[in-house]
Amino acid sequence: MVKVGIAACGTIPFSKDDQKIESSLLKSTKNLFENNSKIDKNDIDAVLVSTNNNSKYLSPILSEMAGIQPKIAHSIESLCNSGTNSIVSAYSYIASGLAEMVLISGAERYDSPGQILQWDDSRGEFKHPIFWASLFTKSYKREFSISDERLAIVSVKNHKQAKENPNAFSNNTYSVQDVMNSKRLTDDLKLLDCSQPCTGSASIILTTEKMTKKISDTPVWISGIGQQTTSAGFTKNNSFTSMESTQLASQKALKMSDHTTKDIDVAEIHDAFSVCEPMALESMGFSDPGKGMNLVDELHETNNYKINPRGGLIGSGHPLGATGISQTIEITQQLQSNANRRQVDDARIGLIHNMSAAATSSTVLVLEK
Amino acid sequence: MVKVGIAACGTIPFSKDDQKIESSLLKSTKNLFENNSKIDKNDIDAVLVSTNNNSKYLSPILSEMAGIQPKIAHSIESLCNSGTNSIVSAYSYIASGLAEMVLISGAERYDSPGQILQWDDSRGEFKHPIFWASLFTKSYKREFSISDERLAIVSVKNHKQAKENPNAFSNNTYSVQDVMNSKRLTDDLKLLDCSQPCTGSASIILTTEKMTKKISDTPVWISGIGQQTTSAGFTKNNSFTSMESTQLASQKALKMSDHTTKDIDVAEIHDAFSVCEPMALESMGFSDPGKGMNLVDELHETNNYKINPRGGLIGSGHPLGATGISQTIEITQQLQSNANRRQVDDARIGLIHNMSAAATSSTVLVLEK
Repeated sequence: MVKVGIAACGTIPFSKDDQKIESSLLKSTKNLFENNSKIDKNDIDAVLVSTNNNSKYLSPILSEMAGIQPKIAHSIESLCNSGTNSIVSAYSYIASGLAEMVLISGAERYDSPGQILQWDDSRGEFKHPIFWASLFTKSYKREFSISDERLAIVSVKNHKQAKENPNAFSNNTYSVQDVMNSKRLTDDLKLLDCSQPCTGSASIILTTEKMTKKISDTPVWISGIGQQTTSAGFTKNNSFTSMESTQLASQKALKMSDHTTKDIDVAEIHDAFSVCEPMALESMGFSDPGKGMNLVDELHETNNYKINPRGGLIGSGHPLGATGISQTIEITQQLQSNANRRQVDDARIGLIHNMSAAATSSTVLVLEK
Repeated sequence: MVKVGIAACGTIPFSKDDQKIESSLLKSTKNLFENNSKIDKNDIDAVLVSTNNNSKYLSPILSEMAGIQPKIAHSIESLCNSGTNSIVSAYSYIASGLAEMVLISGAERYDSPGQILQWDDSRGEFKHPIFWASLFTKSYKREFSISDERLAIVSVKNHKQAKENPNAFSNNTYSVQDVMNSKRLTDDLKLLDCSQPCTGSASIILTTEKMTKKISDTPVWISGIGQQTTSAGFTKNNSFTSMESTQLASQKALKMSDHTTKDIDVAEIHDAFSVCEPMALESMGFSDPGKGMNLVDELHETNNYKINPRGGLIGSGHPLGATGISQTIEITQQLQSNANRRQVDDARIGLIHNMSAAATSSTVLVLEK
């Protein structure tokens, strides 16, 4: 495989701001250029926009506003893992030789139309993701005898970690009791168990090995890619206590990178809801089935930021099209020893897990310095 | 470059049907499988959906309905050239080694939200494409002393050719006088100068050289790819009488394929409006500036279907996300000597021109048998 590197990153703080999607895209792109003055806009030959926003032609619009005239320019949508789908697409443009430098910019507004999957009639009137998350939570708790209080640790840990992330939506820390006392949304979910829809944008540049070395002092490489779609409808899942698409995607990504989960020093996990973090950790092999919370507990008690250092989706917020890119930026910065108070010691190999719609599709990336 | 081939095609008739986008996608995919029984759905490892429709997660939805479990699954949008953007993306997935067989399915409803570019405030209240088309038409007529009656030949020719295309939206032939007498939309445009929004879907399979040879008796290869975005805003165009993005895209595609326009036996041109056909022919070098109508006249008089054999957008209709795929299917069938009464003699090398938003971006593909 051709070597593809990450050469620059930019972001905006995640918020409930009522800004236009075009503005968000431009702001994180501008931040990217501010963060790396060695990039020549004329070298950018592809611009991919990751979003669920209904506005059209956003890649040419962003390109015009940013002063770029790309060859390849289009939007990519796959609900909550639009961001990593775009990164994989950018990888393929570079590895195929069709492009040398790709700007990927993801953005979402707090009122994104991607928050509800209208098509999935198996959900009946329960279209909102909290309903599949409730079913996952109830099933997981029952199968592995896990209490609400234990699952609440995910939220406590990730809010704590988000406190060290200046771009996170949340700036508060919470106790288990705070999570338990937060607004009850369903029998099994409280408000603080859930990631929040928000306005956010994140941008990243992928380029060839040669160009990465030229414009980045601390290059990070994509060494593993795994993706899998099992279905679109929630009730087609084989299990509500594990994630088949995540398992398959992580197996592929780890195999491609020639690593196992034991080699992973730091990881971003798609914790759309508390239960997703232990379940994803188990499905990828970081923990045995039902034992994911043991790892979460241990990391939390020792203040080890290994899992979801930027605060995960629960702490950072979840602007759908930006999330996968923001996760990838966090792992990049960790491998660059550039994560300030969130820094995980001696992080050399990192993993990103990004998924959609009750884990009916998943992307897993492995990065290395 | 790795050799990537076209191994199967499917379509539905273009109409004003009020069907769901998911149904359209599934129908053309089913037609593809009916047309090529050698395809094993288990070999399809990527599904790309090309559309401007606001529905989300369409690739996993189509995959579930069609019985496919792809690794890569997402939607692609770039207004009117979403279709060829998707084909180029599929090419890159295969050439990079991330996928071996990609299903690309494009669909649009007649009421597509991609018909108006809300962002382009330089258009003032004149958001509809007929306004940029009017400016193009007025400028072109003035600069090259071309009459309305001459431009009407494009519509007469393409409706005539669409009559031989069983999937075309139009089933009527018209005289120059019919075009001139059709509803006057602006000073410079009559209804029959315009392509019609419609409901349509087209699907195609791209795969590796080895697999193409295995499942297709008449393989067709993608030998040239060119893309260029110059801007998003209509008034940023350097010229209203030529298409810069089309010129640049065609130069790249022809260079990659090691051909010139002289070698092209058959071409699909993005005739969203009458004036676009001569203007694109000139920008790509098929004709000298201002002389595109000479070629159109000659082809029409000799009943030569070389340009827009399926009837172009004017005759076939223009379901945005399906158009580029439908154009590519037509050229594929021409090179396979499988175009029935539309067949161009001894077609060995073909070209597709697909563009968006007043030619602010263009894709050009070269296909060979």
